[in-house]
Amino acid sequence: MEKKKVTIIGAGLVGSLLSIYLSKRGYKVKIFERRADMRKEKMSAGKSINLALSDRGIKALEEVGLMDEIRKICIPMHGRFMHNADGTTAYQAYGKEGQYINSVSRGELNCKLMDLAEKHGADILFNEKCNNIDWKENKIEFERTNSPESQIVKADLIFGSDGAFSAARLTHQLQHDRFQYQQYYIDFGYKELTIPPAENGDFLLEKNALHIWPRGNYMMIALPNIDGSFTCTLFFPFEGEPSFATLDTKEKLRSFFEKTFTDAAPLMPTLEEDFFNNPTGSLVTVKCFPWIRGDKFALIGDAAHAIVPFFGQGMNCGFEDCSVLNSLIEKHDDNWAAILSEYQSLRKPDGDAIADLALNNFVEMRDKVADPKFLLQKKIEAAFSKKNPGKWTPLYSQVTFSPQIRYSDALVNGQKQEAIMEQIMAIPDIENKWQDEEIEKQILELLN
Amino acid sequence: MEKKKVTIIGAGLVGSLLSIYLSKRGYKVKIFERRADMRKEKMSAGKSINLALSDRGIKALEEVGLMDEIRKICIPMHGRFMHNADGTTAYQAYGKEGQYINSVSRGELNCKLMDLAEKHGADILFNEKCNNIDWKENKIEFERTNSPESQIVKADLIFGSDGAFSAARLTHQLQHDRFQYQQYYIDFGYKELTIPPAENGDFLLEKNALHIWPRGNYMMIALPNIDGSFTCTLFFPFEGEPSFATLDTKEKLRSFFEKTFTDAAPLMPTLEEDFFNNPTGSLVTVKCFPWIRGDKFALIGDAAHAIVPFFGQGMNCGFEDCSVLNSLIEKHDDNWAAILSEYQSLRKPDGDAIADLALNNFVEMRDKVADPKFLLQKKIEAAFSKKNPGKWTPLYSQVTFSPQIRYSDALVNGQKQEAIMEQIMAIPDIENKWQDEEIEKQILELLN
Repeated sequence: MEKKKVTIIGAGLVGSLLSIYLSKRGYKVKIFERRADMRKEKMSAGKSINLALSDRGIKALEEVGLMDEIRKICIPMHGRFMHNADGTTAYQAYGKEGQYINSVSRGELNCKLMDLAEKHGADILFNEKCNNIDWKENKIEFERTNSPESQIVKADLIFGSDGAFSAARLTHQLQHDRFQYQQYYIDFGYKELTIPPAENGDFLLEKNALHIWPRGNYMMIALPNIDGSFTCTLFFPFEGEPSFATLDTKEKLRSFFEKTFTDAAPLMPTLEEDFFNNPTGSLVTVKCFPWIRGDKFALIGDAAHAIVPFFGQGMNCGFEDCSVLNSLIEKHDDNWAAILSEYQSLRKPDGDAIADLALNNFVEMRDKVADPKFLLQKKIEAAFSKKNPGKWTPLYSQVTFSPQIRYSDALVNGQKQEAIMEQIMAIPDIENKWQDEEIEKQILELLN
Repeated sequence: MEKKKVTIIGAGLVGSLLSIYLSKRGYKVKIFERRADMRKEKMSAGKSINLALSDRGIKALEEVGLMDEIRKICIPMHGRFMHNADGTTAYQAYGKEGQYINSVSRGELNCKLMDLAEKHGADILFNEKCNNIDWKENKIEFERTNSPESQIVKADLIFGSDGAFSAARLTHQLQHDRFQYQQYYIDFGYKELTIPPAENGDFLLEKNALHIWPRGNYMMIALPNIDGSFTCTLFFPFEGEPSFATLDTKEKLRSFFEKTFTDAAPLMPTLEEDFFNNPTGSLVTVKCFPWIRGDKFALIGDAAHAIVPFFGQGMNCGFEDCSVLNSLIEKHDDNWAAILSEYQSLRKPDGDAIADLALNNFVEMRDKVADPKFLLQKKIEAAFSKKNPGKWTPLYSQVTFSPQIRYSDALVNGQKQEAIMEQIMAIPDIENKWQDEEIEKQILELLN
């Protein structure tokens, strides 16, 4: 049987990786990307963005043999380094000894994946904007963004991997009866800022950690880059006091940072420039259904399930989509009606679950990690988990370091654990007796 | 100050009524309607639809002096008439003595409101499809649906009253940063069917009631028309057994109806025709935000908050929107920035609340009204309410007969009442002692 001709809309991280999976299986793949070739252009400021590559994403990259190549541009982060408002700092390991997540530049990773996609046989066409899809004829209309032409492309199998504001999803949605759709924006935006390297190239903060300045209603984070700099992201309300609306002069900005991010402000010489030149990003969650059309169309990655970045899982989830799809191609022997149907029924609940987990984690990062009681709870969980292997995997580890646990199961497990820990933390004087055997026993009982 | 030039998109029930409010205040109003003039065309089959006009809608119609005219085409319905699966029937009054809702044909009501809109000075233009709105220039592009022309209309103030699938909302949404949006379809569709009058013109079922055939997962309802017929609506799953998908032959259909709607089937001579010719409607809930743009645009009615029909409140809520808007024009003295801002902040929570109440009521209508325990609960509530005026207004009455109670308050009140009644219904032998003074005392205690 001849393999279907595949068109992928969007040459981002997920589209590029997906093409590699499909090329390896003998599919002829064309990718159409709305933007220009980022490998030939200078990146626009404030769009560099660092991502946290973790086990689900790594598993997918390993499956197609790319991880050795990607590892070269990663910096391991072993835990959260908290910079509290009172000047104290605290550290919380992400997992067990040897477990870590990886800071990687979105731009660099995307360039590398495009190179690898082409190397594996995919054609990538740039400046091609998807305007419409004729679902009966399987014809996609692409408009050239750098010329007045447009072209019609015929494809047997179409993937929409064009991100949170997917054009493929929109044409799917507008022509679909009873399409379930939800887009939800939080009241917070983000702004990219920079901590440059020291003059000698050194990192000015602890290199192998994700830095957080939790401030209750908002926070700043910083992730290391291989050049010694840190990319900071301020997650901040659009309105209210303080907010993007009120920090409207360089003086107010500098004084706010010096008061609020005391140890970071002196390390940010371009703060004013960055803040007022870089765009303010918004943060959307998208849930929709269905993701597929028969044997010929599927949404994948953010196009299917845009999530907020607070669990560091957007890219990892999209890569896992590719990995799951790949296993289903194997299972159903290139029968695409069966592949896409099972892909959707497996991944939809997991996409919904990680969307909810990511929203919940915002509160944890911006607020709870500054609370000694919360940190104690995490310490108790980690200690119990270590002494009782297999009985307790902390939620963060389930999501981040356990690709064998589905997101939807992690969500449910996490809720159960939280209910148990609520009881444990209510025990009087828990601060002093959390290492007693009695506490361990009690957790075991509550687990059964 | 010269009054703003108003354009209303959609000449449905809400758009027509809104124009009357505005005309009466001296605004010059043009309404653009996508469809042809329904007063000149034969109504398409299966689109007749009966609505239940109740106190919120009546209040709005009275405010502009239309109710006397409208009352002529209404049939009062004093309660629910249940036709159970075992052949028994039951009756449940909607409210107190003298309280009722009104069956009225959507088509007739709409025609009448259009006549009255024109009489009050509005221009209605038909076959005008809104394609786009230029928000900077306040220019609306209308495409003629019956000719190749299109025109650009300039307006100071634009209302989108073009229903659940609003084109005005779509152009608003697609050009709005951080637009909150949710569309949710239930897994059930609806089909219109008919019980004609007797040969002598008599009603074949009790005239002054809303008839329900509750069947657990699905139901049929019937509302009286002034010609002696009943318009029936079957609310039925799209998939599964039984469903629209499985009732695929005339024989299966007739046999299913004879078995399931035993008393109704013989009264439906055109069942097969109606079922296979009339379209299957879908049922959507839409929540979105914001509804407005500055001082120049607002969504109203279903365009702002599409809801399912199970509380009979879609039209009533839209009419109440008009009434609230009118009171705000008065309050803010034609300052439209203030009017629209308060309109949105008042009506958004109420739109959300009635959307949730309507979804909840589906379960009540299709399932619970067949349960003697549920009917007993409603009887206890009614008796308590009667003996303790002002202390307990049943949820249905709050929503239907109490325009002074906001939907958002009714939702909260209803949840409190439900929690109380759960405890009362759990009292052993409640069936026999619900009239005891002890029960009344207990409700009073729980209320405090």
